[in-house]
Amino acid sequence: MTRETDGLLIVGEALCQELMDRPAAFDAVQSVFAAMASGEARNFPVIREALGHADALYGFKSGFDRAGLTLGLKSGGYWPGNMAKGLTNHQSTVFLFDPDTGQLSALVGGNYLTALRTAASSAVSIAHLARKDAKVLGMIGAGHQSTFQLRAAAEQRRFEKVVALNRNPERLNRLATVAAELGLEFEAVTPEGLGAEADVIITIVSAYEPLLMQEWIKPGTHIACMGTDTKGKQEVDPALVAAATVFTDEIAQSVSIGEAQHAVIAGLIGADQITPLGEVINGTHPGRRSDEEITLFDGTGVGLQDLAVASAAAKLAEAAGKATRVTL
Amino acid sequence: MTRETDGLLIVGEALCQELMDRPAAFDAVQSVFAAMASGEARNFPVIREALGHADALYGFKSGFDRAGLTLGLKSGGYWPGNMAKGLTNHQSTVFLFDPDTGQLSALVGGNYLTALRTAASSAVSIAHLARKDAKVLGMIGAGHQSTFQLRAAAEQRRFEKVVALNRNPERLNRLATVAAELGLEFEAVTPEGLGAEADVIITIVSAYEPLLMQEWIKPGTHIACMGTDTKGKQEVDPALVAAATVFTDEIAQSVSIGEAQHAVIAGLIGADQITPLGEVINGTHPGRRSDEEITLFDGTGVGLQDLAVASAAAKLAEAAGKATRVTL
Repeated sequence: MTRETDGLLIVGEALCQELMDRPAAFDAVQSVFAAMASGEARNFPVIREALGHADALYGFKSGFDRAGLTLGLKSGGYWPGNMAKGLTNHQSTVFLFDPDTGQLSALVGGNYLTALRTAASSAVSIAHLARKDAKVLGMIGAGHQSTFQLRAAAEQRRFEKVVALNRNPERLNRLATVAAELGLEFEAVTPEGLGAEADVIITIVSAYEPLLMQEWIKPGTHIACMGTDTKGKQEVDPALVAAATVFTDEIAQSVSIGEAQHAVIAGLIGADQITPLGEVINGTHPGRRSDEEITLFDGTGVGLQDLAVASAAAKLAEAAGKATRVTL
Repeated sequence: MTRETDGLLIVGEALCQELMDRPAAFDAVQSVFAAMASGEARNFPVIREALGHADALYGFKSGFDRAGLTLGLKSGGYWPGNMAKGLTNHQSTVFLFDPDTGQLSALVGGNYLTALRTAASSAVSIAHLARKDAKVLGMIGAGHQSTFQLRAAAEQRRFEKVVALNRNPERLNRLATVAAELGLEFEAVTPEGLGAEADVIITIVSAYEPLLMQEWIKPGTHIACMGTDTKGKQEVDPALVAAATVFTDEIAQSVSIGEAQHAVIAGLIGADQITPLGEVINGTHPGRRSDEEITLFDGTGVGLQDLAVASAAAKLAEAAGKATRVTL
């Protein structure tokens, strides 16, 4: 039994790049964080499996946002041999379903959108938690994702300068180029120098020990830790996490696979001291309370973010009449 | 970064019905049961969530078969309001990925294939466990799925007669019609009469108490319990399960959500007394040992079955040049 429908929307990677922009991703992520905090949106358990084939890690993140009527999943994985084949190592696809009937409604390329939503996530935290007068943006990490974080962050405050560091300093050229494009001064600095100068810091590295110590940080700094999404990974000093007012996308992930895991294991903080960023967006938590407070956003990455940006991309593609439609 | 590929295969419901048949589904399910038993194929944890919207149940079954190189998931759900909209209440779609790169390779309609694989599952159990001289097939349940079970079972032995019962006896016409098509005698019977006459019994109902008691069954009977896939559901007497040699698709599901759950809770059997059907297919378990033994297959339904039939359908569609291809 099937009924006549408009069919399934196919929104490929190229179309996502053409149609989705940072403001749309910002709005989508901000809305879904709000819906998560109010209980209207919920992430389902994450599936994550080592395949024992091609050294691949593979899994699914899924959820339902009753406010945005977004239901679906992102399949994603990491195939370390892809680069040699001319493909990205991370592969993601988002599947959206009609929550009223369960029918598949859209298939959306997830590679570009994942970069966009991760950048939107730290940007939303900056919008709601950084000091209004922040002038210097510190970047730790200069990988592929770092330029997305920088561009999205730069739109949230009147920054004048970017200070940055990376394990391999040659890669900093990538960030210097983007900073120049955005009309921002750029300086490669030491970790101590970065802490002394930056008003907002984004960490976006895959690391297993702290790169930023508490004593290097100025009062009033906002830090967005975006690289820790697995047990054992770590970007900053647990004492810094303990000294900061901590916000996150999802508390359950923050304390188990996020940056806060180490402070929790050390007994420095508990889950009850971590606030969903959505509560600040909704106005049920005041957010930053003073110009001296250190705020820290633990961005762990949840499926609902992926569904939110994919749903926005699908709507844009449909409105533009550019999506392919097929009948399943 | 993308490379030139042939694109994503779209294999819709109509094409699945046109190209997939019972022998292909039988082979696919038999092979994946074998791969599961040998450790080459593995189901990942099942996600199953009540949405709190449209009374829907929604979830994913996923897995990887290293032998068949099949990686993917079936999204599925139950939308009780669909019938009124002219749609099936169960909605499923299968997504297949290239295990070498993680790229989405095929999108396959899952509604017809789910019916076909569930029928193939009991058919494989009959092929490997029923007495060769079985003549009478007993059917308990006459819903939509029952005709699929009957057709697939009828191909496994030289049956002469179908005996059947259903809560609503008027629905038995459906099975009578199929039996007539297949040249089989048909008789509506009582539960006791069914047990006394049938050499093979398939139960395919959504029930919460036993419909078939141990004392009604003849020695040498093979029973395939296909309707129990959730905690609390039950089709047959736990004493019958305890008296039978029990086989299943997946032990973990059999003892928790399958027919065996009640015998396990009652302490009548343990997981170590249940054998994966794949071991019989692989020849590492002898299967039926005598003409008097009662064998029971607890068919719980695993994701790998769905992936196996969907992969077969995608290959047939590709070979026939009939699948739609799109670029993601």
